[in-house]
Amino acid sequence: MTIAARWLLPDGIEEILPPQAARIESLRRALLDEYQVWGYDLLQPPTAEYLESLLTGVGSDLDLLTFKITDQLNGRLMGLSADRTQQVARMDAHSIPKQGVARYCYCSQILHTKPTNLLSSRNPLQIGAELYGDSGSQSDVEIIALMLRSLEKSGINDVTVDLGHVGIYQALVARMALTEAQQEDLYSLLRQRALPELEQWLSNVDLAQSDKDILIKLPTFAGSVAQIDSWKKELAGAPEAVFTALNYLQSIAEEITHQYPKVTVHLDLAELRDYNYHTGMVFSAFVSEFGQPVARGGRYDHTGEVFGRSRPATGFSCDLKILAMLTVADWSSPAGVLAPADDSEQLKQAIRQLRTQGERVIQLFKDQPYVDELGCDRELVVKDGQWIIQPLITSGKN
Amino acid sequence: MTIAARWLLPDGIEEILPPQAARIESLRRALLDEYQVWGYDLLQPPTAEYLESLLTGVGSDLDLLTFKITDQLNGRLMGLSADRTQQVARMDAHSIPKQGVARYCYCSQILHTKPTNLLSSRNPLQIGAELYGDSGSQSDVEIIALMLRSLEKSGINDVTVDLGHVGIYQALVARMALTEAQQEDLYSLLRQRALPELEQWLSNVDLAQSDKDILIKLPTFAGSVAQIDSWKKELAGAPEAVFTALNYLQSIAEEITHQYPKVTVHLDLAELRDYNYHTGMVFSAFVSEFGQPVARGGRYDHTGEVFGRSRPATGFSCDLKILAMLTVADWSSPAGVLAPADDSEQLKQAIRQLRTQGERVIQLFKDQPYVDELGCDRELVVKDGQWIIQPLITSGKN
Repeated sequence: MTIAARWLLPDGIEEILPPQAARIESLRRALLDEYQVWGYDLLQPPTAEYLESLLTGVGSDLDLLTFKITDQLNGRLMGLSADRTQQVARMDAHSIPKQGVARYCYCSQILHTKPTNLLSSRNPLQIGAELYGDSGSQSDVEIIALMLRSLEKSGINDVTVDLGHVGIYQALVARMALTEAQQEDLYSLLRQRALPELEQWLSNVDLAQSDKDILIKLPTFAGSVAQIDSWKKELAGAPEAVFTALNYLQSIAEEITHQYPKVTVHLDLAELRDYNYHTGMVFSAFVSEFGQPVARGGRYDHTGEVFGRSRPATGFSCDLKILAMLTVADWSSPAGVLAPADDSEQLKQAIRQLRTQGERVIQLFKDQPYVDELGCDRELVVKDGQWIIQPLITSGKN
Repeated sequence: MTIAARWLLPDGIEEILPPQAARIESLRRALLDEYQVWGYDLLQPPTAEYLESLLTGVGSDLDLLTFKITDQLNGRLMGLSADRTQQVARMDAHSIPKQGVARYCYCSQILHTKPTNLLSSRNPLQIGAELYGDSGSQSDVEIIALMLRSLEKSGINDVTVDLGHVGIYQALVARMALTEAQQEDLYSLLRQRALPELEQWLSNVDLAQSDKDILIKLPTFAGSVAQIDSWKKELAGAPEAVFTALNYLQSIAEEITHQYPKVTVHLDLAELRDYNYHTGMVFSAFVSEFGQPVARGGRYDHTGEVFGRSRPATGFSCDLKILAMLTVADWSSPAGVLAPADDSEQLKQAIRQLRTQGERVIQLFKDQPYVDELGCDRELVVKDGQWIIQPLITSGKN
């Protein structure tokens, strides 16, 4: 075994070093504080649960992302949490006795078997918020607003929000006579926006030409809210649910633009999601310098049903490490105060007092040389029998 | 599949619900802030690493506690972190370019295959601090002081510190001609303090009677620092390293008693550890109402050697969930302000302003009934055209 083999980390799994870890911690606190004042209660789902808790009712994508381990106490299969939504649904349905609207937030590491895209970590620090018990657009608006406020708080500007609605695809497909396998193929082709393959696939499927035309056009229905009317015309004859969804998207888009005029809102009728639990509006936030969503979410009503309580729900999440990478704000900690190696009670007291005031104080050990890496810009020195702070003059050290 | 089977959590794996999660978060911040002002840099080791990174040089106990998963990108075995010490050693040796004394802290969830004792979680929220690059007693004293300060900050009183030194056992065994298997048996019997089994085992081993006498007496060498002189007499003829270790323990005990006069210091010469990486002084903190250590640590020099840099190191860790359970301090968050369902810009502004001031404001949705569970004790009402805060009168609601 070479030494290099021992310090190599697996691809897509990162350690967070100082000072980046402190910056992420500051950002973490700023966001959780924001969720707290918006009324979102912090909770902490476990790192692992039984597979039937984690994966019942979700799609195969999440299954494939989930590491499996065996509970050595009873031989049952557990999964490592790859996404918090299902866990929060279980907690809302079973563990938390709230009857009315409930707001939750969380922040901790999850693990994925594979990166979900080229830029993603397999060990994201997932932070998110979920709103249970309201099915109206007001809760979707609040969740999108909280996501945008999170990005604003993080120091991330020039945000575009993509809005979609899985009800559009669902209503269109519901009236087509497709087998389950065909539906899976279609979903996968549309989700990947594999248009040539979609065209090829449609040519081999027994569907009305009008349905084929709509499916092939669906991915092109993307743009500003002003285009909704023209899409409606092209979708003439589609099920009523398609138009309900379009009107819903329109009102959400208008409300978000009103609340966050600097944010670009973009609609995308073919926006589908990997984890399969969404039931209504879905959204993603993008910034220009990053080729993947920085945050995403949507409505996933009735996910708690398998746990014994069916409630409407909407939420969003993001990887705090990505927010910390993209921020333009300065989240670094202030420099510290250096104290000499000296056993006097007076110095100990001065150090204690400074620390109580929130100052970082690093005391040198006996014979420890001064090195710049300690991150101090001031030092404690004796003057007229008193310990005082003065700017650190590093040239005199060592 | 019944619904109950889906919401059951595995034994020893807990979820943290509101408001306990918020209390733990407050405590987490208080402790990390304390480590920051003491000069300890936060870092975040990954959730999983290759097995050779996690387990090289540690004992089989840690191996047995570690869940194994296969990296699907290359088929190599990874382990889920069951303890942060080895990861921090790797980071100090390889990832962090500090040449001098380095201080690190961390706080995140780890996972164990089995509970380490009857009261322990399999999913602890491990918080800890480590000091690298100094081999003197000053760093052991600092680490014990920081552990005691953590307990003090957490609102945990009546603490007893047990001090041991693995060098005592190591020096005694080094001069006895025991096979590796015999050493393992002996270590295990002493660690479990299985005295009748130890006596039985010794009767079948070919050792000088004087050595047998010392080994059988070792677990009885436990008590206050005042007893060291009598133990020294009973250990007459033991290797010099035993007396060096005893003197080391004595000076640490005296310094801790000086700094923390309320803490009871207790010595225990047979104190051994499960993870096998300790090389010098070891310590555990106990409180009367809890039958297991609430925090523990010790010296583990040269752990980084397998990663290419050998440095002295000492540290401690604890499960934040246990500290939060034992605290007598109140870590709960203040109650919030209720806002009515009202779309007026004036109300939105009032809410925004309150939230900026750190107030938790929960606005009711249209048609959402008021329920006590929202945790508000004041409400926003209009008076003379102004939104003002008044005490919440719940009887008028609903």
